[in-house]
Amino acid sequence: MSPTRSSPTGILAGGLGRERLRAAYRGGEMTPVDVVAAVLDRIEARGEDAVWTARVPRAEALAAAAALDLGQIDRLPLFGLPFAVKDNIDVAGLPTTAACPEFGYLPRESAPLVDRLVAAGAILVGKNNLDQFATGLNGTRSPYGVPVNPQVPGLIPGGSSSGSAVAVAAGLVSFSIGTDTAGSGRVPAALTDIVGVKPSIGLVSATGIVPACRSLDCSSVFASSVADGAAVLAVLGGPDVADPWSRRLPVPAGDLPPLALAGLRLGVPSAISGWGTRGEQEAWLTCCARLVDAGVELVPLDLDELLEAGRELYQGAWVAERLSGLEEFLEREPAAVLPVIRTILADGAEVTGAEVFRALSGMHGRRARARALLADVDALLTPTVVETFTVEEMLADPISLNTRLGRFTTFTNLLDLCAVAVPVRPWSVAPFGVSVQAAAGRDEVALRIAAAIEGMAGVSPSGAAPVDGGLELAVVG
Amino acid sequence: MSPTRSSPTGILAGGLGRERLRAAYRGGEMTPVDVVAAVLDRIEARGEDAVWTARVPRAEALAAAAALDLGQIDRLPLFGLPFAVKDNIDVAGLPTTAACPEFGYLPRESAPLVDRLVAAGAILVGKNNLDQFATGLNGTRSPYGVPVNPQVPGLIPGGSSSGSAVAVAAGLVSFSIGTDTAGSGRVPAALTDIVGVKPSIGLVSATGIVPACRSLDCSSVFASSVADGAAVLAVLGGPDVADPWSRRLPVPAGDLPPLALAGLRLGVPSAISGWGTRGEQEAWLTCCARLVDAGVELVPLDLDELLEAGRELYQGAWVAERLSGLEEFLEREPAAVLPVIRTILADGAEVTGAEVFRALSGMHGRRARARALLADVDALLTPTVVETFTVEEMLADPISLNTRLGRFTTFTNLLDLCAVAVPVRPWSVAPFGVSVQAAAGRDEVALRIAAAIEGMAGVSPSGAAPVDGGLELAVVG
Repeated sequence: MSPTRSSPTGILAGGLGRERLRAAYRGGEMTPVDVVAAVLDRIEARGEDAVWTARVPRAEALAAAAALDLGQIDRLPLFGLPFAVKDNIDVAGLPTTAACPEFGYLPRESAPLVDRLVAAGAILVGKNNLDQFATGLNGTRSPYGVPVNPQVPGLIPGGSSSGSAVAVAAGLVSFSIGTDTAGSGRVPAALTDIVGVKPSIGLVSATGIVPACRSLDCSSVFASSVADGAAVLAVLGGPDVADPWSRRLPVPAGDLPPLALAGLRLGVPSAISGWGTRGEQEAWLTCCARLVDAGVELVPLDLDELLEAGRELYQGAWVAERLSGLEEFLEREPAAVLPVIRTILADGAEVTGAEVFRALSGMHGRRARARALLADVDALLTPTVVETFTVEEMLADPISLNTRLGRFTTFTNLLDLCAVAVPVRPWSVAPFGVSVQAAAGRDEVALRIAAAIEGMAGVSPSGAAPVDGGLELAVVG
Repeated sequence: MSPTRSSPTGILAGGLGRERLRAAYRGGEMTPVDVVAAVLDRIEARGEDAVWTARVPRAEALAAAAALDLGQIDRLPLFGLPFAVKDNIDVAGLPTTAACPEFGYLPRESAPLVDRLVAAGAILVGKNNLDQFATGLNGTRSPYGVPVNPQVPGLIPGGSSSGSAVAVAAGLVSFSIGTDTAGSGRVPAALTDIVGVKPSIGLVSATGIVPACRSLDCSSVFASSVADGAAVLAVLGGPDVADPWSRRLPVPAGDLPPLALAGLRLGVPSAISGWGTRGEQEAWLTCCARLVDAGVELVPLDLDELLEAGRELYQGAWVAERLSGLEEFLEREPAAVLPVIRTILADGAEVTGAEVFRALSGMHGRRARARALLADVDALLTPTVVETFTVEEMLADPISLNTRLGRFTTFTNLLDLCAVAVPVRPWSVAPFGVSVQAAAGRDEVALRIAAAIEGMAGVSPSGAAPVDGGLELAVVG
């Protein structure tokens, strides 16, 4: 080891953000092997933390890191970045369980998105826990336990991509891939104070992913900064003829052009009810005030139509879509499915074909009206969540509290929007974030606005890992 | 009347094609009042011909014609053209029945497409008979009777837009508006030797139209030439925020730029089975040979995937969509619905919501594969129908013969294609035509290719009315 090389502790202390690692690799201060070894040490030291359902064997991960040639770093946008994927995404050689071990299977091929990431230089370290069948927004619905929220240990981590968000928030990987149907790629980002990028439907291949609601499912990116999220999305984006819902949409730039806040018009909800008790409303109001100070015009919009649309996901026809992929398994092994998931899926069996077609026409009308509403602004800005709960609270009332988490996320895919969730931690005592939402295809606009808000909020784009157990007071308060 | 003015007989003898009428109006040889009066006389002289379900009162139609100012002809692309609409399209003041009198209602407003046509100078003369609820491709499913096929009186006129096609084919209007879900805007065009333009889904507003399968329904244009069809479609095209399935798509030019056949690549079915006994196959082969002579490259394509897709419309999940708009009425007044329609709709009640979602994902995959298949050619060319039947034959076996009519039309909307049906009469003894099909949004390409084929076939673009009872031999043969 050369004398300029970092110690294992030093490696992790600075965070696993892309720019930092690339600079360190270029400067010879670290190698991908150093980083992966340090990451694996940290993961092993944490023991059974409910973040992982499977891990790439240490030797294999280290070999992948060792195989990277520094001479290729300019060609490999994700060179030497450790990452994880949610365990509803196929990785050849590791079981896919969707947090239901009895459902598990061993895929022969990785999902194309995993191959793309690896081809871009990223190093897979493992697969993450989730709310079973990606059905939930809270992170408590898994036989593998509840991943501890590194920001406030008593609070839920959010779901369904619970382990994937915690893996980033706890500094175990540079980024992770989740999925998002109702907010699973954004709620856990907000509740662990990281960035969650939920692309337009069809921008990223969903081949090799266990469907939740197939027509709405999106792969999503968790990262410690918007810039890192964009770099990953730029690798992932592009059409896939094997994915029926794939679309040819503009792929955002991996290196986002900066954007000035001054002069932007952002739609905001004209009214928000249901605020939590952990300072969420204050954080939102501070964020809005700072944006106005920065020259943003906030345009109050009546979002009733959007909120109504959202209710159809768990309380309408789309429950039948959620059921459609699981019907056979559910009949064969009902006991393997968590009772709360069974309860939710049971409603899907009551939905008739005619009802689905009526709902589809209705939703297409809502989409057109949402597009018209948003045509007048650069993007929509909402809180990502308006409240959060302790694990205990959630387990005591698992369905209605879950629905409340999705107030500003559940409509997004139904209305064919893209979204970027970004933390505004300096203004909140509990985890809290806002989401920039825009029409499908405007992913780059949403990312650039989110990056500008992130910059304004002074969230470190270096991806510094948070101090474990940071804000325990908030749980008590 | 000036000495240069045409006699009523002369007016109709030359056909009601757009270019002829515009030239005659400009030259002062006729006025819109002359034409409308002659048309109404001819309609009245025919008596109960099962073509009409309702007519605009004579005085009203003549007043509309008289109100047209010749000075505005350059501004009004449909100046003085008499037209009709299928009776599943709302016209203020006339009942909408969808060929089910008990279902009928009196709309307060006309469908926006009717308003557009009138604003462009067209003159509505009435509403046309159809297969009940636009469910059928044959023209025999109506309590108002079977419109007589003016080409071969014993043969079915085709449906569901039976009356609308016959109104054009019998020289009663310049053009008419039908609807097309499974081929209702193309099969009757082929069987009456006229042009049928089936635009991309969402190009023309479907507001004020009784839905068949709402996500697939298209308004369509019947005309005596492709040029006339294009002129009408150019007036109709454009987004409508009130129509959930409306899309922003390129509106074709009303004045089509000509296109040379030489050098075109047209996909054709690599195999066609089920040919009828009335010379259809010979007509198809002659058409193909002439195209090759003209320098077209015919590319045989395996259309199995497309044909399979088509079967899902009447034998799969989409029957539930057909049911979805009628469920309530059907429960209230089952006896008002024709037995054959009841039989078809009954299957829709068996379809579960989960099945619909699985079918939607499957069809999205088929759409992607169809797009990939067609990406290599300028358009797909198929027979519009491969066989036809007498009214007697059809009534004896009303469901399976109907399905056979739709072999090359039923997949079109399910796979998100547009199509233009054009007659190739010189090469056939029975009514026969071909269809140019292309991906959604390529309406102008399809129209231009169809116009070139029409020109090659020597079909008069003047819209000459056929001689009544032209080809009775073919029925016998």
